[in-house]
Amino acid sequence: MDIMGGDFAPEATVSGAILAKEDLNSNAELILIGDQNQIKNILKEKGYSQDYFEIIHANQTIQNGENPAKAFSQKPWSSIKQGYALLEEGRIDGFASAGNTGAMMVGAMYTIKPVAGIIRPVITASIPQFNGDFAILLDVGINPDCKPDVLYQYGVVGSIYAQHVYKKENPRVGLINIGEEEEKGNLVVRSAYEMMKGTKNFNFVGNVEGNEIFDSKADVLVCDGFVGNIILKEAEALYKLLRRKGIKDEYFERFNFENIGGTPLLGVNGNIIIGHGISNHIAIKNMIIHTQYVIEANLSEKIKEAFQ
Amino acid sequence: MDIMGGDFAPEATVSGAILAKEDLNSNAELILIGDQNQIKNILKEKGYSQDYFEIIHANQTIQNGENPAKAFSQKPWSSIKQGYALLEEGRIDGFASAGNTGAMMVGAMYTIKPVAGIIRPVITASIPQFNGDFAILLDVGINPDCKPDVLYQYGVVGSIYAQHVYKKENPRVGLINIGEEEEKGNLVVRSAYEMMKGTKNFNFVGNVEGNEIFDSKADVLVCDGFVGNIILKEAEALYKLLRRKGIKDEYFERFNFENIGGTPLLGVNGNIIIGHGISNHIAIKNMIIHTQYVIEANLSEKIKEAFQ
Repeated sequence: MDIMGGDFAPEATVSGAILAKEDLNSNAELILIGDQNQIKNILKEKGYSQDYFEIIHANQTIQNGENPAKAFSQKPWSSIKQGYALLEEGRIDGFASAGNTGAMMVGAMYTIKPVAGIIRPVITASIPQFNGDFAILLDVGINPDCKPDVLYQYGVVGSIYAQHVYKKENPRVGLINIGEEEEKGNLVVRSAYEMMKGTKNFNFVGNVEGNEIFDSKADVLVCDGFVGNIILKEAEALYKLLRRKGIKDEYFERFNFENIGGTPLLGVNGNIIIGHGISNHIAIKNMIIHTQYVIEANLSEKIKEAFQ
Repeated sequence: MDIMGGDFAPEATVSGAILAKEDLNSNAELILIGDQNQIKNILKEKGYSQDYFEIIHANQTIQNGENPAKAFSQKPWSSIKQGYALLEEGRIDGFASAGNTGAMMVGAMYTIKPVAGIIRPVITASIPQFNGDFAILLDVGINPDCKPDVLYQYGVVGSIYAQHVYKKENPRVGLINIGEEEEKGNLVVRSAYEMMKGTKNFNFVGNVEGNEIFDSKADVLVCDGFVGNIILKEAEALYKLLRRKGIKDEYFERFNFENIGGTPLLGVNGNIIIGHGISNHIAIKNMIIHTQYVIEANLSEKIKEAFQ
């Protein structure tokens, strides 16, 4: 876990790590990557021993405003650079960060690299469904312009993620669209539909409209990063409105994006989990637990196999 | 008012017309276009005199499933065809229908035609803002593929609509995007930003993100018809979720799309109002009242002037 990344680091990241350690499987090892003095001070304040965690010292931080590529190459002792180095060396099985998303992407591209055959690695979001389940939405902002074959690949990788991490049998893949019928949509989406409809690589269930995204019509919802980002942020907005109105409800609490942990970067040669900058300690905890699931599922390897 | 169009016609359309007539200005004349026997029977059942409305007889209906272009040309006595004929003749100043949207579009293209200089006529939706106001979102589904100059024109026509119908001074026009900064977005949106940022044709206020669309950051929200349709339908989905959870709230009731009247087709040579198929009698009433506002504002003429 990158301890230096995120708006509330290192306080929230260390607190989240403490919470996570209690819930992780006994064979899981949690390693903190960050400034060891700061980490040890926080542990001390909270009454934990200085060696409660294994720490890899990294005393540089890539801030959110920094140019990702520049910062990644110019800050060798940044937690993000160190995290990728550990992953490349095989010393860790997965790396999670709520830091600069661009730098996390750059790190993946420069070090572990995309899986051969993957056109664009992609990040996802969990969309709470009314029946209590989640659907995986992808892309949510990395690739605002997607060609049809990129959308098709999202169906493949999203399906693998749903199957191996969320343990869904034969996950249903839907295409976000503006109508039920095959001929609806913009040019790219219509071509993607054509590619998806006969596929044997995933269980394509057709179009899913904006008013159906909470209705469990599919386990995986495919769209470009522009549309996915709007969908995700509109859901955030709706949650914010409910809070402002003082409406509390268990279902809608699942839209509380502050608590939502990270999401894997799908399509790279390693298990990378990227979290929101605004992550609080609960989000960090959830992110670490999710990283465990992703490692256990051997997710990046499963995607690699599918593209061999 | 087209009495034959909409899922609950002619019952809901006649009931809506009765409600509207009480609220219209005294100098407004409401003319019903539809099957006169059916209309008169409903009036009779409801205890109104047979000549409570002026009726233009049109005994054919274009159903929702029908091919718009074919139906429009092959059903001369359809209410939609008759409505456009009356508008062309100048016998009515505006025409409203909750019927087949495609046929309404075809009718506009074949008869009154787009305003010279308008690349794509467009429809809008009202998005309730948290502060009690509305923002106008456009496009919401007619043009899923938009070039930058089309988005730019949406800024122009949306601004005119906000100014003359909603009486907003110097309406703020925002561009729906996935980040605050100028360089964010997909290729089309980035080019549209370039075109908008120096414009004197409307008051451009920059990007509006998905989590800000209820925050009154702009009076007019511009996006392509794919994104706009998703935004609108996701808001509908949220309202549906609240209803299922039994949560009632005055603010969220403004998201009740069943009650929302029609929206003008902007950029054609005449005042056309298009409503949802699912319109109930309240929606029909609101649609008729809105048609009055659009006519009073001389909206189609105002847009024509702007493109001269």
